[in-house]
Amino acid sequence: MYEVEVKVRADHDDVRERLDELGATPVGRVVQEDVYYDAPHREFAETDEALRVRRQRRRARGEGDERAGAADRHDEEVVTYKGPLVEEESKTRREVETGVADAEAAHDVFDALGFDPAATVRKEREYYELDGYTVTLDAVDDLGEFVEVEVEADESDIEAAREGAYAVLDDLGLDPDEQIRTSYLGLLLADEDASE
Amino acid sequence: MYEVEVKVRADHDDVRERLDELGATPVGRVVQEDVYYDAPHREFAETDEALRVRRQRRRARGEGDERAGAADRHDEEVVTYKGPLVEEESKTRREVETGVADAEAAHDVFDALGFDPAATVRKEREYYELDGYTVTLDAVDDLGEFVEVEVEADESDIEAAREGAYAVLDDLGLDPDEQIRTSYLGLLLADEDASE
Repeated sequence: MYEVEVKVRADHDDVRERLDELGATPVGRVVQEDVYYDAPHREFAETDEALRVRRQRRRARGEGDERAGAADRHDEEVVTYKGPLVEEESKTRREVETGVADAEAAHDVFDALGFDPAATVRKEREYYELDGYTVTLDAVDDLGEFVEVEVEADESDIEAAREGAYAVLDDLGLDPDEQIRTSYLGLLLADEDASE
Repeated sequence: MYEVEVKVRADHDDVRERLDELGATPVGRVVQEDVYYDAPHREFAETDEALRVRRQRRRARGEGDERAGAADRHDEEVVTYKGPLVEEESKTRREVETGVADAEAAHDVFDALGFDPAATVRKEREYYELDGYTVTLDAVDDLGEFVEVEVEADESDIEAAREGAYAVLDDLGLDPDEQIRTSYLGLLLADEDASE
């Protein structure tokens, strides 16, 4: 299975209104803190790979941001490897991941093996289901608000899945032509480069 | 904390009899299958490090080997990094580990990062508690039967812990002078080298 996703910048208030009108189902909110690593033996920026340790806390539905600290209620810790793009347009890539019992120990293992933390991406994600697609409202620290439309597809269905994702964006009043193909990590690193 | 352990070859039937006479407490049996990896950027054999993915199945007490398949009753999957020796005589080293939800995915992550499976060590372990030490009867595929005596110790207590482990071996009718400092992985790889 491949993950087909398209992402645009978008004001969340407008998109929430549209999701409500379309009868989308809210399916939860999380806060994710992702640490991305540099490898000791490869330039991931060149090989287009990524190694990530994610800590995720689930939040109660409808909970206000100001209560975030108190209401964090579930921890998930996951190690993910992302391979190079197999389909450029929809940013499709191989992903392998496993939950870990102890993200700090996972960090220590990679650190001992010579992998250095390169950047941290922190975001709040609000998920909706719409027409078989997952619509995610991302508020990313230091970057702003984005909307992702995502679905899993077999290799033979990638093209159709991407067209479907574009249609969902359309329904939400968003423009598929404004798709951003750079990852949040990439955007953050680009900002850092620009400000140096 | 450091893990202090001493290991000798020993016939298990004799040792079980001695453990019984000494009033040792049987505390469980497991089957472990360990995959050790080669790194793409370091020679672990030279740096004296190891990276391991372990799958462990617990067994019911007293269960015969012939029923092993049916009675496997718990899976544990763990990623472990072992650093170089900090104390030669007792084989003391830094260990970092975390449970993983999916050992196969953990394997795939390391594989994608260029770590190759170098060897697999499969063993059945039978644990006893005796005088504050853990006595482990290991039956290792392709290697035979061993007994390990093990305890955790602070850095300042390593010497005393090792002397205590020798005393336990003595009590079991085993000779601390026959201590084997090579890991099962090392013994297996040595056998492979010898048979080439």
